[in-house]
Amino acid sequence: MDAQEAQRIKTLLDTRQPNHGLPRPFYHDELLYLAEMEAIWRQGWLFAGHSCQVPNPGDYFLYNVEGDSVIIVRGDDGEIHALFNVCRHRGSVICQEQEGSVKRFICPYHQWTYDRRGNLLLQRGMQEDLDKTQLGLHRAHAREVEGMIFISLAEMPVDFDPIEKAITPVARPQGLARGRVAKIMDFDVASNWKLVWENNRECYHCNVNHPHYIKANFDHYNADDAIPRVVERLKSVTTRLEFKLAAQGKSLRDETGMTEFPDPDHGIWYAANRTPLVEGYVSESMDGQQVAPLMGDYTDPEVGTLRIRALPNFWIHASCDHSVAVRLTPHGLSHTDIRMIWLVDGKAVEGRDYDLEKLLPFWLLTAEQDWKICTNQQAGVSSHAYTPGPLSTYKEYNLDRFIRWYLQEMRVFVEQ
Amino acid sequence: MDAQEAQRIKTLLDTRQPNHGLPRPFYHDELLYLAEMEAIWRQGWLFAGHSCQVPNPGDYFLYNVEGDSVIIVRGDDGEIHALFNVCRHRGSVICQEQEGSVKRFICPYHQWTYDRRGNLLLQRGMQEDLDKTQLGLHRAHAREVEGMIFISLAEMPVDFDPIEKAITPVARPQGLARGRVAKIMDFDVASNWKLVWENNRECYHCNVNHPHYIKANFDHYNADDAIPRVVERLKSVTTRLEFKLAAQGKSLRDETGMTEFPDPDHGIWYAANRTPLVEGYVSESMDGQQVAPLMGDYTDPEVGTLRIRALPNFWIHASCDHSVAVRLTPHGLSHTDIRMIWLVDGKAVEGRDYDLEKLLPFWLLTAEQDWKICTNQQAGVSSHAYTPGPLSTYKEYNLDRFIRWYLQEMRVFVEQ
Amino acid sequence: MDAQEAQRIKTLLDTRQPNHGLPRPFYHDELLYLAEMEAIWRQGWLFAGHSCQVPNPGDYFLYNVEGDSVIIVRGDDGEIHALFNVCRHRGSVICQEQEGSVKRFICPYHQWTYDRRGNLLLQRGMQEDLDKTQLGLHRAHAREVEGMIFISLAEMPVDFDPIEKAITPVARPQGLARGRVAKIMDFDVASNWKLVWENNRECYHCNVNHPHYIKANFDHYNADDAIPRVVERLKSVTTRLEFKLAAQGKSLRDETGMTEFPDPDHGIWYAANRTPLVEGYVSESMDGQQVAPLMGDYTDPEVGTLRIRALPNFWIHASCDHSVAVRLTPHGLSHTDIRMIWLVDGKAVEGRDYDLEKLLPFWLLTAEQDWKICTNQQAGVSSHAYTPGPLSTYKEYNLDRFIRWYLQEMRVFVEQ
Repeated sequence: MDAQEAQRIKTLLDTRQPNHGLPRPFYHDELLYLAEMEAIWRQGWLFAGHSCQVPNPGDYFLYNVEGDSVIIVRGDDGEIHALFNVCRHRGSVICQEQEGSVKRFICPYHQWTYDRRGNLLLQRGMQEDLDKTQLGLHRAHAREVEGMIFISLAEMPVDFDPIEKAITPVARPQGLARGRVAKIMDFDVASNWKLVWENNRECYHCNVNHPHYIKANFDHYNADDAIPRVVERLKSVTTRLEFKLAAQGKSLRDETGMTEFPDPDHGIWYAANRTPLVEGYVSESMDGQQVAPLMGDYTDPEVGTLRIRALPNFWIHASCDHSVAVRLTPHGLSHTDIRMIWLVDGKAVEGRDYDLEKLLPFWLLTAEQDWKICTNQQAGVSSHAYTPGPLSTYKEYNLDRFIRWYLQEMRVFVEQ
Repeated sequence: MDAQEAQRIKTLLDTRQPNHGLPRPFYHDELLYLAEMEAIWRQGWLFAGHSCQVPNPGDYFLYNVEGDSVIIVRGDDGEIHALFNVCRHRGSVICQEQEGSVKRFICPYHQWTYDRRGNLLLQRGMQEDLDKTQLGLHRAHAREVEGMIFISLAEMPVDFDPIEKAITPVARPQGLARGRVAKIMDFDVASNWKLVWENNRECYHCNVNHPHYIKANFDHYNADDAIPRVVERLKSVTTRLEFKLAAQGKSLRDETGMTEFPDPDHGIWYAANRTPLVEGYVSESMDGQQVAPLMGDYTDPEVGTLRIRALPNFWIHASCDHSVAVRLTPHGLSHTDIRMIWLVDGKAVEGRDYDLEKLLPFWLLTAEQDWKICTNQQAGVSSHAYTPGPLSTYKEYNLDRFIRWYLQEMRVFVEQ
Repeated sequence: MDAQEAQRIKTLLDTRQPNHGLPRPFYHDELLYLAEMEAIWRQGWLFAGHSCQVPNPGDYFLYNVEGDSVIIVRGDDGEIHALFNVCRHRGSVICQEQEGSVKRFICPYHQWTYDRRGNLLLQRGMQEDLDKTQLGLHRAHAREVEGMIFISLAEMPVDFDPIEKAITPVARPQGLARGRVAKIMDFDVASNWKLVWENNRECYHCNVNHPHYIKANFDHYNADDAIPRVVERLKSVTTRLEFKLAAQGKSLRDETGMTEFPDPDHGIWYAANRTPLVEGYVSESMDGQQVAPLMGDYTDPEVGTLRIRALPNFWIHASCDHSVAVRLTPHGLSHTDIRMIWLVDGKAVEGRDYDLEKLLPFWLLTAEQDWKICTNQQAGVSSHAYTPGPLSTYKEYNLDRFIRWYLQEMRVFVEQ
């Protein structure tokens, strides 16, 4: 991006009015999209998947980020590595299957052979003086925290330790690392990735659009409709859950209503908290009943719900018995690939301990309702007649936070 | 469009040689296309549909113009309104169905609610001090004339009164406003919108391509082949029709052969006229016989054929018993969405008074023949080897008029 | 292409490191692609097809090069002509079928009529003073050599005589001009055209990817693995074949291993040679046995294999009994249309003299294996993580030659 282009983006960033949505070009401008890819998607930490998807050395899956295929593999050292799926010889992709297990990575073209950490082992047919040490697979940064794998395509990514510190104590009892995949579903949603986040960051739309979701959760209540009876009720369920968890040696980092997230003023792009479910609900299932064996360290189903989010591409909701991770990957201005991963306890057996018919509907319905909303919004903001409207100060404060975080990340980039 | 781009377009406009077609870039240059959208499609009046498609207050249909979804709705005042289908809050589309009937417009996202004229009524969940009067749906201009709805996306559209004055007396007896839709068909034609007009503006291609059309019409005759016998015949049928119409209190604005249209020298972008059909034809049907009850004020099937055109997107052909409107909408340089609407009298009942098998073929065949021609031409003008050829001075004079009108509209725009 | 753009391309051309692959932008940059089309594809000679596809005057087929439809037709003079499939009147395509036979070319739009050499004969409906001689179909250059048709879209193409001189003596005995088409297959390969050539220019990948191919051929042997036993063997089969051919009055232009091609230092973009097959193989068929009658002047099946190549779009492999031509046509940065044409002797009858089940598999398998390889490589070089690797000095020398030839052609163009 040259100086003139950077200036154009900078000017665009200044067009957003306080407490309003983003203007039309933010969902249409190709140059802006390229800048976002550089400023945010190639800088930040991206959730790739769960460590339980690759239990043994050599197990791998691919994560495709805007044309870059990355191999997420468990090495012989037991650690997760992220290797670019591109042979150092002529550039062929090496792994052709979306997942699998390998002893070595062998390029299908000329059989250059790499070990599970990407080191070049064999290159039959090449001159003798080749320096193998310079020809290992290019690597991305990879970190695992409590069974969640994050990668960064940046040369020098931002510090991962703070998110690790924030997530670990809240997530640990869930035992995601000891989980197993019950289901993976992929969606191609005709919507800009920011609209998907904007949708995620408010529950103003929940009452009408997610009738089953609001039966289980409190976060559609806000300053306006949290009448004294509701406030009393929230206090009661929170106290009860705190007491329960304390008995199990766990603490509740409670926040009813929507957690304030992100925090652009302090550069906070991740958060984790546990919050109570509605009375009578022990799981985010259609009837609130448990739909799989307890996960992790839980001994009592009443653990509320665990929520973690990390910008720009991840959130997860976990009940006592299952978790549902959502991974966003933009492809172009008006499309987002979305993967959903359902985990249950690693020892659970389908058909015996859980049924997909009971496990999936709660979050699948919620997701499909949201993808439809986002698609509708993308269609609307494409209109020349679209002008950003005012945001609700007490129902869309997090959306404003998201937009401010986004603008700040972009400004840092163009002002470099 | 910046000054440099405007200059590029201006230079391009000057490359057309007199009495020749348009050079290749006119069908290929993305910047030119964007300029056309601004200069012509967002300035002019566009036919949207018939008022009989929305007989009652709250009835609506959508018209999608280059990404802008416009709601054509009949208001409580009985008037037609054109509202942009974009919520003023977060920009979601409001109407998701292509047509329907509503009491109020309710956004599916957060249920902001607008009345049938687009005024904001309810916005639950927003701060109290919101000024509702500033948050009604954005409006496009809408005018209805003799049952035909025109809209303009311009802030200050050109004067509509002249077209109304020109159309009204000729169209009134047809009674389109009292019609009913017999059939709507939509086509995606792989051709630039200008090629569709160029095809419409000459009948040089009719003899071979439209064998059934020329049985009913005289307009393939031109200076060259209007031998004395033909001239005599034309005079005879015209006189007969004038006499007939005069007896009914109607006048014939006759022009046999192709009406000269448009008139770039006087800025005329619309025209209406009535012209005789061939002896023995009372309707543009395959055998020339009536295929539906008489429309409007007609008491005698011998009314010739009524033709109206308005640039850039509309023409209609009407016989005593039915009418066929054609609406063009460009989508990209090499595609045009084309809608055809067949109307019959409002009291006619399908199966009893008319059959689609008899009603549709005449214009459907003609249209499909033309769409194929336009697709062939688009494929050819895409070639690097394409060079514009000379136009026939006595068969393609209207095509020259169209091109000159187009260039003039574009020049006005880039010279602003 | 303006000066600034030419400079950008020039700078890009300089980024290639000696004896390494081409950097990522060579497979991604739209401007570079446009430059390639001008510098190489609109300058060079392109194989269009075989003259036996159009045996009689009026027989034609279309060849579509990047949006330009070219009619390859045999004229009344018996010669091959290449005419642009674009009417000189309004630009419609004239031939709508991919192949056929015509007395005259008649435009479907207004029936302008051209003879088989493209001269305008009739233009009913036009003014009298039209100068027909200026309105013949635009022509491309066409040359036929030993049954192979080459065209050039350039105004002043490079000299064709040298290739004719090089090909004729080697190809003549094959009798391609007296062949008949046994099969034509078209492939859309998701790969840049240069990657297809790079794949063609080395047999480093053959051992693992083409197990059946290496049973018939020697060209996977190189300096490294041509151990004394292999060298001895090669010498033996070559001598034997030379002797055989000498007895038939033909000479072997032998080169075992990969022929060195192209020769960027001397501007050589074509080559033809004959090389021995492995002992026991008389044809490139799955079992090495003859699969069709002898072609051309051959009286003995032991003629080795004839190979001809011409940049940028052609190679052919011919055994005693059949030939397989490959024609490349880029469409966009990441796709190549590939046509394969199998010829047998003109008097051979399918079912009686040959079966497709035996004729096709050898080259069809090889091709499909290569298209898969090229698609894998395209996917890999699309990654931001792709960096060009070192080439094998003794297995990929021809790939280096191809890249240097390519860069040179491009440099000539941008330095004009």
